[in-house]
Amino acid sequence: MIVVSLMRLDDQESRLKEAYPDVSFHFYKHPSELPHDIQKEMDVLITYHAEVNQAFIENAPNLKWIAWYATGVNTLPFETLNERGITLTNAGGVHAQQLTEFLFAYILDDYKELKEAYSEQQDRIYNHKRVTPSVSGQRILFLGTGKIPQRAAQVAKVLGMETIGLNTTGHEADYFDQTDSLARRQEIYASADIIVNLLPETEETYHLLKREDFQAMNQHTLFINIGRGTITEEAVLVDSLKEHEIRKAYLDVFDKEPLEATSKLYDLDNVYITAHISGNRDDNKKQATDIFLNNLENFLNNGEVNENVVDVNKGY
Amino acid sequence: MIVVSLMRLDDQESRLKEAYPDVSFHFYKHPSELPHDIQKEMDVLITYHAEVNQAFIENAPNLKWIAWYATGVNTLPFETLNERGITLTNAGGVHAQQLTEFLFAYILDDYKELKEAYSEQQDRIYNHKRVTPSVSGQRILFLGTGKIPQRAAQVAKVLGMETIGLNTTGHEADYFDQTDSLARRQEIYASADIIVNLLPETEETYHLLKREDFQAMNQHTLFINIGRGTITEEAVLVDSLKEHEIRKAYLDVFDKEPLEATSKLYDLDNVYITAHISGNRDDNKKQATDIFLNNLENFLNNGEVNENVVDVNKGY
Repeated sequence: MIVVSLMRLDDQESRLKEAYPDVSFHFYKHPSELPHDIQKEMDVLITYHAEVNQAFIENAPNLKWIAWYATGVNTLPFETLNERGITLTNAGGVHAQQLTEFLFAYILDDYKELKEAYSEQQDRIYNHKRVTPSVSGQRILFLGTGKIPQRAAQVAKVLGMETIGLNTTGHEADYFDQTDSLARRQEIYASADIIVNLLPETEETYHLLKREDFQAMNQHTLFINIGRGTITEEAVLVDSLKEHEIRKAYLDVFDKEPLEATSKLYDLDNVYITAHISGNRDDNKKQATDIFLNNLENFLNNGEVNENVVDVNKGY
Repeated sequence: MIVVSLMRLDDQESRLKEAYPDVSFHFYKHPSELPHDIQKEMDVLITYHAEVNQAFIENAPNLKWIAWYATGVNTLPFETLNERGITLTNAGGVHAQQLTEFLFAYILDDYKELKEAYSEQQDRIYNHKRVTPSVSGQRILFLGTGKIPQRAAQVAKVLGMETIGLNTTGHEADYFDQTDSLARRQEIYASADIIVNLLPETEETYHLLKREDFQAMNQHTLFINIGRGTITEEAVLVDSLKEHEIRKAYLDVFDKEPLEATSKLYDLDNVYITAHISGNRDDNKKQATDIFLNNLENFLNNGEVNENVVDVNKGY
């Protein structure tokens, strides 16, 4: 049994080796370092690299399982995986906590007017008259109702917010007061104070949000994107923000990443930008390895895995 | 029955008058506008003003109940209230939600490094390498375990934090994993990542935190004061922050308010200042009036009140 990782896993490497001394583990810094003979023989692959494309898979005839160490799997060649019967698992849920923390950091930064207060501090102005709105009672609409939105909605509920979630079929989900289908979104937007995109990138969600979507939102809407930047074209977002069709946006992901310094988003005064950092966490590797080890135990016993299995037909 | 309010209550005024048409309500913009004859006859007083001192009470011989429309009652002449048998209620709990929102706004602003990210945005720098710590698993220590710290601890628990609370006797409190007595605080500080002051101002808590307190804290401690600024002398705080005995402070309250523009706190780069705004909320008057109306019903029926009664011997 050969398990290959296309990145170094630091202290998780000895953890894996000690747990399964009979498995042959190979760790590389980057896909380019993988020797061809190992690629031909490997059974299991740990990766999150765009280099794992159709050609790469064709040169790995023995591959049975890809353990994706991130959440968004959209760069993978699903058709090939399907034909070959290769199992795909991801690290979905590992980022739920960190993304939830960023989401509420953004929301509370806005609602509690911290940037405005900080600007006063720098001018040594003591403005006791500042009255900020409460998030309690605010309606927060999530595009997506999977593990990450559920964790975020759980925190929103404790803070007294109303939670609405949109998904493909409108099915119910934990921690959502109300769910509906994405197809009906333009009828629902106006009731929301905060709209958060957490949809995975698929053919259906690519550039899903058009100018009409933003025009259907309430003008006081706070829009937050911590899912995938490809949910909307940059120009659509820039125009909607410039025309104040929505009040403000916090964006951690972008249609084209890395965001170029010439992006018009930087010219706006109602947008806050972070550099796709909301999933970064120092112990991500440990948490993804927790999932991997649980799956590996089953894989060695009966050739199957059961945690975080991705439906390669749906792409999430 | 004469009820006097020393501030205008906006739309709550008609609410009160309509609920109790037989009660004579008088609303003034400020204590200075109160006519002497009304002061002599009034039964109930709605206020949160420092002007309500011993002399003021002596000129109100008929006064039976003070409904304090804020939480901290420390400016009142407790001895006089006690002698006269005047009941005191406050608006404790009304601010729990807003203070909790500010607390997590501060914590997440720090942990998610939003100010650093914003500085990069202003320079059009896209720094995808920023890895921020999670609040999950962090130990948060509250000085105080009353209604407000309990609400804050509830949110902290949902975010995966460990909660410790200190109070006079060390008694248990909802949402705290651990409680202990304030007397033992210097032995407990070092285990905490975040320390939050939410103690009321009393003779016991006035300038309670000395330099030794801050020296006993962990050097990576984030200190947050949203309770009363008089918990420590400004010079103590300035020296501790300057010497990096703690990592950083978010302060909404100060030993002397309003904070003067010459305060040395403004010279530090590891302190964030807001202007005692964490209790400001547009619907505070409505929420305090909810409590008042509930008490008034009982007061009219049997001369007693039962919600948010302050123990004038303890001062909270």
